[in-house]
Amino acid sequence: MTMLSRRTVLAAFLAIGLFGSVAIGAQAETQATDPLPSWNDGPTKQSILDFVAAVTKDGGPDYVAPAERIATFDNDGTLWIEQPIYTQFAFAIDRVKAMSNQHPEWKTQEPFASILKGDLKGLAASGEKGMVEIVAATHSGMTTTDFNKEVKEWLAIAKHPRFKVLYTDLVYQPMIELLDYLRANGFKTFIVSGGGVEFMRTFADKTYGVPPEQVIGSSGVTQYQMWDASPVLIKMPKVFFVDDGPGKPVGINTFIGRRPIFAFGNSDGDKEMLEWTAAGDGLRFMGIVHHTDAAREYAYDRDSSVGKLDKALDEGVAKGWTIADMKNDWKTIFPPAKSAP
Amino acid sequence: MTMLSRRTVLAAFLAIGLFGSVAIGAQAETQATDPLPSWNDGPTKQSILDFVAAVTKDGGPDYVAPAERIATFDNDGTLWIEQPIYTQFAFAIDRVKAMSNQHPEWKTQEPFASILKGDLKGLAASGEKGMVEIVAATHSGMTTTDFNKEVKEWLAIAKHPRFKVLYTDLVYQPMIELLDYLRANGFKTFIVSGGGVEFMRTFADKTYGVPPEQVIGSSGVTQYQMWDASPVLIKMPKVFFVDDGPGKPVGINTFIGRRPIFAFGNSDGDKEMLEWTAAGDGLRFMGIVHHTDAAREYAYDRDSSVGKLDKALDEGVAKGWTIADMKNDWKTIFPPAKSAP
Repeated sequence: MTMLSRRTVLAAFLAIGLFGSVAIGAQAETQATDPLPSWNDGPTKQSILDFVAAVTKDGGPDYVAPAERIATFDNDGTLWIEQPIYTQFAFAIDRVKAMSNQHPEWKTQEPFASILKGDLKGLAASGEKGMVEIVAATHSGMTTTDFNKEVKEWLAIAKHPRFKVLYTDLVYQPMIELLDYLRANGFKTFIVSGGGVEFMRTFADKTYGVPPEQVIGSSGVTQYQMWDASPVLIKMPKVFFVDDGPGKPVGINTFIGRRPIFAFGNSDGDKEMLEWTAAGDGLRFMGIVHHTDAAREYAYDRDSSVGKLDKALDEGVAKGWTIADMKNDWKTIFPPAKSAP
Repeated sequence: MTMLSRRTVLAAFLAIGLFGSVAIGAQAETQATDPLPSWNDGPTKQSILDFVAAVTKDGGPDYVAPAERIATFDNDGTLWIEQPIYTQFAFAIDRVKAMSNQHPEWKTQEPFASILKGDLKGLAASGEKGMVEIVAATHSGMTTTDFNKEVKEWLAIAKHPRFKVLYTDLVYQPMIELLDYLRANGFKTFIVSGGGVEFMRTFADKTYGVPPEQVIGSSGVTQYQMWDASPVLIKMPKVFFVDDGPGKPVGINTFIGRRPIFAFGNSDGDKEMLEWTAAGDGLRFMGIVHHTDAAREYAYDRDSSVGKLDKALDEGVAKGWTIADMKNDWKTIFPPAKSAP
């Protein structure tokens, strides 16, 4: 919910449909002996392998007990695609269209009128206030059960405007391998994202192998009510927690209660999570996905309105964090496509 | 933090020291073949054994996949002692005394003056506002790291006024066995308590085998700050989340994201958690600890200001939930004492 109220989303919103269709990348080669076959050999991949070897070497100077092997990952732009707009925002727009029959007043009421007319400039003109209204209209007023059902149904059919496949097919294969590799080495993997926690929980388990209780995100207030002697949780149009920027270490402390030893992000919204991870005792791994591949995915950083990477990139370079260069470090981007035409 | 602001705590506070010292119960007998040796044989124990057998029987009509075997436990009065006052409240009072040298103004300023004089009636007169001030003074204004250190140091030396042992020795042996038994059967055990989440996380792993990321509780707002180029989280004097009553299903949904199939509480503050658990599909277990043993622990329910059990008891009896009668169902109350004199 809350990420949608970011000012930066406005411009991104205008970018819908600017990109043509491009064939997705080659499928991952699999090598039985290589835990990260979709990563090209080089210093980036090696920094991951070295870190895991060091913290799992029993008796070694950098050994970390399994219970403390907490790894946190941002979602949008780190585990799956976030361009041209955050997936959850695409969901909200589609929901406005789907709900418009029950809301005849939307035909003349902004920001809904602009969405229904396909007038993206008009939508952008409604500003942050408009974004909040869209989120309130589409993410509240129903039970948590009904909301989860709506998200699942949408994810099962909605296609990405450029790649023409399901959004859950546009996860990053190298990161899926990394999640698996960490778990095989005793890590507990968490998602710590600015995206809505209930939205992500509908697919994180199946898509990433991250169960609901290990997904931390932004959330709205929910209210316990009795309907026909049966308890329900109602999603209210009020922000509960914004898991972005300085909210990420706060969320990590509140929801997990341990400091990660490994964190991966891709934008300035991950800066504080990476700093918080780095500030712990002992060996730490901080990683940033740098989107450098306009041909196979997208190329953006300092000037992007979605997933802006500026201060965190400078800090990462200065402090020697691992910068995964999508174009050079990733042999393949997406998993073998299941729903591509 | 928040539980301390409850009005009902006021009266309980006056009860400090009213109870004499009584020898603690007999140590648990251990039987290799009995997973719950501290539970007397009978319908209560059998209801637990039957439920676990049913949901773990592969191919059976009530089978539940391991990932969905979520069990939630209240803490105060369910897993450890809560009389004559909540342990966290005893901590807050001791912190006021320990901090008083740095606060000369407290000698004349309520509610602190009453605590320093040992005037419990004066403290009670300061009302809910006074309680909030005590919590704000003792649970905020420091880093999370420093707070955790204070709690650990206190738990290592503070003794219960009646039993004269550490508070962590006053956990319920039958419930420890139950937690172990559930985990041995593929359950993931969570604490869902009105107590402060950071307070509980300092001992829940060692004491209950519940890691920090599986402890849900009340919490205050924390703020990310840079101190000497190092990030810290500062505990602010502001409530973030109250994990009590209807807040329990809300907390379960927000922090865990799955509905429990097994829940245990002991007071009206657990009613909604038990209802939420019961309302799921398939076989469910709802349990209530009924404190009926004044000789070995305490006897209280409908009229108690701490851990009041009234509406939840009526609902539990009416709906056939398991009521664990401490006096009759528990062979022993506390684990073999480590620090008793």
